[in-house]
Amino acid sequence: MDAFEKVLGRVIADARRSAGLSQEALAYRCNLHPTYISQLERGLKSPTIRTLRMIAEALGTKPSTLLLRAEAET
Amino acid sequence: MDAFEKVLGRVIADARRSAGLSQEALAYRCNLHPTYISQLERGLKSPTIRTLRMIAEALGTKPSTLLLRAEAET
Repeated sequence: MDAFEKVLGRVIADARRSAGLSQEALAYRCNLHPTYISQLERGLKSPTIRTLRMIAEALGTKPSTLLLRAEAET
Repeated sequence: MDAFEKVLGRVIADARRSAGLSQEALAYRCNLHPTYISQLERGLKSPTIRTLRMIAEALGTKPSTLLLRAEAET
């Protein structure tokens, strides 16, 4: 994965903390594995749009909002 | 895949045509298989962020722009 995934992972982690959720709680809401959330937040995985949509919904935001934040930092 | 992927596929196809590119030309620019581009445009695949970034770059736009267009239609 490249620099963008690292930034996007950080953006997701920030949004998760702002929502007051642990990695486990976010994983549960999205029906994903906590290990996957951890890998995502460290930029080790590039999520599919489908996965990004589930995460955004669980965090009360939109996929485009998360991407815009990541694009603004890269 | 669900309705969002179908809409995103249409958004990508529209952007590709606006850029004057065939599916083959876009595939070549992104180092992806033409069959994959076809599947993506028909909503049969959910691209990773990494793939969406390559496609957006080849089309002279941003991943967030493509997502915003798809979100506006869903």
